[in-house]
Amino acid sequence: MKAIVKTTGAAGADLREVPVPTPPRDGALVRVKSVSICGTDFHVYNWDAWAAGRVRPPVVMGHEWAGEVVEVGPEAQSLKVGDYVSGESHRVCGHCLQCRTGQGHVCRNTQIFGVDTNGCFAEYFAVPEASVLKNDARVRPEIACMQDPLGNAVHAALAGEIIGQSVAVLGCGPIGLFAIAVARAVGAGPIWASDTTDYRLNLACKVGADHIARVPDENIETQVANGTDGQGVDVVLEMSGAVPAIQQALRLARPGGRVSLMGIPSQAVSLDIAEDLIFKGLTVQGIVGRRLYDTWYTMKSLLASGRLDVSPILTHRLPFEEFAAGMELMRSGQCGKVVLTV
Amino acid sequence: MKAIVKTTGAAGADLREVPVPTPPRDGALVRVKSVSICGTDFHVYNWDAWAAGRVRPPVVMGHEWAGEVVEVGPEAQSLKVGDYVSGESHRVCGHCLQCRTGQGHVCRNTQIFGVDTNGCFAEYFAVPEASVLKNDARVRPEIACMQDPLGNAVHAALAGEIIGQSVAVLGCGPIGLFAIAVARAVGAGPIWASDTTDYRLNLACKVGADHIARVPDENIETQVANGTDGQGVDVVLEMSGAVPAIQQALRLARPGGRVSLMGIPSQAVSLDIAEDLIFKGLTVQGIVGRRLYDTWYTMKSLLASGRLDVSPILTHRLPFEEFAAGMELMRSGQCGKVVLTV
Amino acid sequence: MKAIVKTTGAAGADLREVPVPTPPRDGALVRVKSVSICGTDFHVYNWDAWAAGRVRPPVVMGHEWAGEVVEVGPEAQSLKVGDYVSGESHRVCGHCLQCRTGQGHVCRNTQIFGVDTNGCFAEYFAVPEASVLKNDARVRPEIACMQDPLGNAVHAALAGEIIGQSVAVLGCGPIGLFAIAVARAVGAGPIWASDTTDYRLNLACKVGADHIARVPDENIETQVANGTDGQGVDVVLEMSGAVPAIQQALRLARPGGRVSLMGIPSQAVSLDIAEDLIFKGLTVQGIVGRRLYDTWYTMKSLLASGRLDVSPILTHRLPFEEFAAGMELMRSGQCGKVVLTV
Amino acid sequence: MKAIVKTTGAAGADLREVPVPTPPRDGALVRVKSVSICGTDFHVYNWDAWAAGRVRPPVVMGHEWAGEVVEVGPEAQSLKVGDYVSGESHRVCGHCLQCRTGQGHVCRNTQIFGVDTNGCFAEYFAVPEASVLKNDARVRPEIACMQDPLGNAVHAALAGEIIGQSVAVLGCGPIGLFAIAVARAVGAGPIWASDTTDYRLNLACKVGADHIARVPDENIETQVANGTDGQGVDVVLEMSGAVPAIQQALRLARPGGRVSLMGIPSQAVSLDIAEDLIFKGLTVQGIVGRRLYDTWYTMKSLLASGRLDVSPILTHRLPFEEFAAGMELMRSGQCGKVVLTV
Repeated sequence: MKAIVKTTGAAGADLREVPVPTPPRDGALVRVKSVSICGTDFHVYNWDAWAAGRVRPPVVMGHEWAGEVVEVGPEAQSLKVGDYVSGESHRVCGHCLQCRTGQGHVCRNTQIFGVDTNGCFAEYFAVPEASVLKNDARVRPEIACMQDPLGNAVHAALAGEIIGQSVAVLGCGPIGLFAIAVARAVGAGPIWASDTTDYRLNLACKVGADHIARVPDENIETQVANGTDGQGVDVVLEMSGAVPAIQQALRLARPGGRVSLMGIPSQAVSLDIAEDLIFKGLTVQGIVGRRLYDTWYTMKSLLASGRLDVSPILTHRLPFEEFAAGMELMRSGQCGKVVLTV
Repeated sequence: MKAIVKTTGAAGADLREVPVPTPPRDGALVRVKSVSICGTDFHVYNWDAWAAGRVRPPVVMGHEWAGEVVEVGPEAQSLKVGDYVSGESHRVCGHCLQCRTGQGHVCRNTQIFGVDTNGCFAEYFAVPEASVLKNDARVRPEIACMQDPLGNAVHAALAGEIIGQSVAVLGCGPIGLFAIAVARAVGAGPIWASDTTDYRLNLACKVGADHIARVPDENIETQVANGTDGQGVDVVLEMSGAVPAIQQALRLARPGGRVSLMGIPSQAVSLDIAEDLIFKGLTVQGIVGRRLYDTWYTMKSLLASGRLDVSPILTHRLPFEEFAAGMELMRSGQCGKVVLTV
Repeated sequence: MKAIVKTTGAAGADLREVPVPTPPRDGALVRVKSVSICGTDFHVYNWDAWAAGRVRPPVVMGHEWAGEVVEVGPEAQSLKVGDYVSGESHRVCGHCLQCRTGQGHVCRNTQIFGVDTNGCFAEYFAVPEASVLKNDARVRPEIACMQDPLGNAVHAALAGEIIGQSVAVLGCGPIGLFAIAVARAVGAGPIWASDTTDYRLNLACKVGADHIARVPDENIETQVANGTDGQGVDVVLEMSGAVPAIQQALRLARPGGRVSLMGIPSQAVSLDIAEDLIFKGLTVQGIVGRRLYDTWYTMKSLLASGRLDVSPILTHRLPFEEFAAGMELMRSGQCGKVVLTV
Repeated sequence: MKAIVKTTGAAGADLREVPVPTPPRDGALVRVKSVSICGTDFHVYNWDAWAAGRVRPPVVMGHEWAGEVVEVGPEAQSLKVGDYVSGESHRVCGHCLQCRTGQGHVCRNTQIFGVDTNGCFAEYFAVPEASVLKNDARVRPEIACMQDPLGNAVHAALAGEIIGQSVAVLGCGPIGLFAIAVARAVGAGPIWASDTTDYRLNLACKVGADHIARVPDENIETQVANGTDGQGVDVVLEMSGAVPAIQQALRLARPGGRVSLMGIPSQAVSLDIAEDLIFKGLTVQGIVGRRLYDTWYTMKSLLASGRLDVSPILTHRLPFEEFAAGMELMRSGQCGKVVLTV
C-alpha cells in the first residue's frame, strides 16, 4: 500500500510503498478514506527539535482519519467489517489511575499514532479497538477525519459551563476556529475572537464569532470591557500559545470566570497571580487532548444532528499524494484544516 | 390604574380601577408593558380547589411581566428610572438554608405574586428589587414577559448534561415547547416530543423537535428504541403531569440517563423502582421554579444573543382588556403562550 | 484445588475439588486469601426464582475476594506476580457508551463472577486485568475482600454532596452499615439510622450513627423533624428495599435534598410525586454497583489512610470449608459481613 | 462602649470609649463575646502600604467575631434577641451577577468590616442580617469567632474533590492549619504539610498532617514523589503566597490534579505553563473568601457534629484590652490563631 513515511531524521517525508499491516488481535484493519494534517504532523515533517527528540524513523505519519473496517482481529468485540469509523490519536494504557478515572487524556503512558507508532497517512491503518469510534453515516469522511482536533476544541469549550456564557477565543488556528463553532452551537454568546491575520478572522466570522479583533492593532480587552459592562467574559479559551495572550486571558475573564489554556507557550509565562487569578477567584485549566470518550460521544452527536457545522474550517482538500503541498499550506497560515483524500 | 383583579371566591376576574401602588423601600414601581398568562392564573381564574385553598381575594392577578421602572424606592441599589425589566414570580425569604445556598426555588417561605400578594396584571406593579431582573434591549416586551415560565424550561433542560444529548420531551404545553426550543438552542439532539394534540406537535416541530409522537396512537417508546439502538434517550423532560407519561419517562431513559419531572400529577404514581430506576442507575429530579438567579442570567444571554428563539410559542397577542378571551384560549388548548399588551 | 461449587439447580452448594484455572491472556491467576459472602451468593445458594432464572450450574460461586497474583497472562500490562489484589464483581464490556463514559456500572453487557461465570470461592481465581485492583498493604485480606459491597456504599454515599450534610440511612444490613461508616469518615453529620433489629442498630452505633430508630416502633420521621428544625435531612440513603421505607425516604429529605435508592423493592412503589418529589425539588438516584473505578480509588485511600474503619462490620470469620454455616448466619440476620478464610 | 479603633494613619490602634451603634433596619446589634485577629487586622494595625491606600480612620477594627443578638432592626426577618451568632466579613452588594449566582465571594462591590466600615473589635457590633449566621450552641464563642478564616480553608479544601484524595498543604499559618484539619475531617489522605518553622509544623501534626517538611531544608517534592509512586498528589492547597511555593504547587500535583491558590504573592510569578499546567491537564483555582453561604453551612455542621476539631489552632487567648500583645504574637509567627475575649 501507499503510505506517507517519515523515513529519516531530516525535514520532509516520502510517499512509499509499504506492506499492509495486520490488524491487532483486539483491533481492526481500516481502509482509510480521508485524513487531515495536524500541527503535530507539521512538526514531524519539519523535523524540529521536539520531533528530533521523540520520533524514531521510519514511521508512517498521521493520526487524524476516517475510514472503513475491512478486517477485524479475533478478540475485538464491538467492531465488524463495514463499520464506518474514526479514532483517537492518543493510545493510552487503560490501567493507570488516570485511565481508570475518566482522565485518560493525561495518561502518562500515552503513545501517539504517527509519532510513537505507525499512523494513518496510508491506504490501510491497523488500530486497536480501544482507539476506534464509530461515525454517524450522515457525517462525510472529510469531516469525520477532523474529529481528533475538533475534540480538543469540544473538550476546551465544554470543560466548564458554556451555555449562555460570554466567550473570548484567543487564536483562530483550526482548533480556535473549531472552538468558536462549538461555542456557537451550544448557545454561548456573545463570542469574541482574536487573531493576527484577516484570513483566519474571516473564518472566525463564518463559524459564528460575534466580534473580532485583529491583534495587536485592535484591543480585544477594550472591546470586551465595553461589551460586558466592564465585567469581562465568563469564559476565555486561549488557543494561541502566545505569552501576551496567556497573560491577557486572565485579565479578560470576569471575577469568578473560567480560563481554559490550550495553546502551548514556548517559554515561561509571568503572571500577576494575586490580582488576575486569586482576587478574581478564577478557575484556570490546562487543556490537552480530549476526554476519552465523553468528548467523542458529544462531538458525534453535535455533528450527526447538524447542530455543529465545521465545514467552513475545512478550507483545502488535496489528493493524498500532494501532502507536501498541504504542508506548505500549513506553513503559510492561509488555511483552516487541510484534508487529504486517500 | 386598570388592573385585572380576583375580587371574589368564584370563577372569573374583573377589570377594575385601583390605586397605583407605592414602590417598596427596597424596590421599584414598574409601568407594565406586556404580561403573559400562566396555567396558575388559569387556576385562579377558574377558582379550582387549589385556588380556593390558597388565594385570599381581592388580589391583582398575574406574575409574568415586562415593563419599565418609573419610580425607585429609597433603599434600592441596583435600579434606576428607565430600566427595562422583568421579574421572578417567586418572592423568597432570602434568609433560609435554601435561599442562602442557591436553592431559593424551594424556599419554604415563598410567596407568589398574583397568588399570595398583588401581581402584575395591571398598568403599574410594585416589586422588590430582589425579584427584578434587567432585560436586554434587543428582547421585545412580549417575549421578555414570558421569561418566568421559560425559566422553568431552562431550569429543567439544564438541570444536568444536555449538550449533545438525545432528549425526549413529554407534553408540549408552553413549558414543554420552551424546553424543546432550549434543548435545540444548546446543541441537544435528536429531540423527540410527544403530546395528544396536533396543534401542539406542530408547534413542537417549529421550535426544533426532530421527531414527534401523537400519544396515545403513536408509540414514542418504539420510536426512541429504534432511534437509539435500543438504548433509550440520555434525557427525559416530563412536562405533562400525566401518570402514564411519568411511568414512561423512566422507561424511555437509557441506563445512566436523567429524568427531570416537572409536570405535576394529580394522584400518586406507581413506579417499578427496581427495574426502571435502580438497575438503570437513573437520576430523577423534581423540577420546580427556576434557579435564582442562575437560570435568569443564562436565559437572558440565550435570548439576547439570538441563539434561542421562542417567538413561535407566542401564538396569541390580545389587548389587556380582553383577558377573558385569553383565559378561554387557555381552556381550549389551541394555543402556545397568550400575551396581553397593557 | 478446592472450590465452593453450585453444582445443581437446587438449594445448597458443594465443596469440590476442581482443576486450577488458567489465567486469561490479559489477566492473572490469583491465590485467594479471603472471601466474603454477598446477599447475591445467598440467593444463588438458596436457588430462589431469580437464581433459577439466571445461573447455569455448575459454576464456582463468589465475587468478593482478596488474594495474591501467582501467575500473569502474556498480555497483562499492569500486574506482576506477588501483587496483593482484589477485584470488581461486574465484568463489563468496555466498549459501550456507558463503559466509555464513566458509567460502566450500568453496562448492559455486564457479567457477574460467581453468577454468570466462575467466581472466587476457591483456592485460585482466574480474572481479567480489567477487573483487578491493587490493595494497599496496610489493609488486611479479611477487610480488602469486602471492598466490592463497601464500594456500593461508597458509591451511594458519595453520589452527591455529603460533607457536612445530615444523613438518614434506612436499613442497616451490611451495605447500610458500610454507608454509615463512610458518611462518618467523610464528615457527614448528624447521621440517623433505622432498622428492624437491635443487633444491627447496635452495629450502626459502633460505626458512627448519631441517632437510631428501631422501626416500626420508633418514628424516624419525628426524630429527624425534631433534629432538623422541621427541614428534613440533606441526604437519604435507602438501603432496605422496603416499600414503606422508599416512600419515607422522599418525606425525610429536606427541600432541595438528595435521595439515593439502593435497596431493591420486590414490587411496584406508589409515590406522591407532586408533594414529595417535584415541589421539594428533590434529586432521586438509582444506585447500583460501583463507579468503575473512581469508587475503588476513593475507597482504597479511605481504608489505607485509616480514615475509614469498617472492622466492626466484619462480625464473623469462618474457615472456607464452613461456608454452609456462613449461609445460615446470613439467614438469621444476626450478622454483619461473614468472611471465609481460604 | 469600649472599642479598638484605628484612629490615625500610623502604626498602632487605640482602646477607646465610643457610642454603642444602632442596629440597621434590616440587621441586629450584637453583644460581642469573642473576636480573633486576622492577618488583615495586622496589616491595618501596622499601617502598611495596602492599609494606607484603603483604610480611612477612624474605624473600629476587626471582622472575626461571635456574640449574642441584643437588639433587632424593624425589618430583620430571621433574627431574634438571644440568637447566638457569628458573621461573614465580606459585606457584598447582593445585586450583581456574582452575588446572584453563588459567587458573592468575588462581588466587585464588597466592603470589609473593620476595613471599609466599622468592625467587631468592640463590646457591641451593628451588623446587617445578610451578614449574620447562627451558631450551634455546642460550639464555644472562642471557636465560633474563627469561622471567617476557617471558612477560607473550608472553601479552599472543598473547591473540588477532596474525599480520599492525597493532599499537600503549602504554608502552615492559621488558614493552612485549618485546611489540614478540614482535609483530615472529610477523609482526605495522606496529607503532606510544609512550612518554614517547627512551631507551625508541630501544629500541623496536631491537626492531622501525615507528613511534614520544613522548607527549604526538607524537600517536599521528593517526599511526595516517593509517597505517590511518582504521580504527585491529587490536590495542592497553596497557603503561603511564597513565589517558589506557587511554582512548586504545579509540580506537586499529579496529571489531572487540582491546585488551589490562596496565599497571595507580592510579585509576579513565572510559571512553566506548558509542562506544569497544560500537558498535565491541571485545574488551578484562585481562592478568595468563602462561598456565601454554602461554606458557612458546611462549616457549621462540621463543627457542631464534632467531626472537625480546630481547637489546637487556637493557641492564644487574651483579654480584649491586650490586643497589642496579640499583634506582637502575630508578628512573631509563634502562634496559631489569637483570640480576644471581649
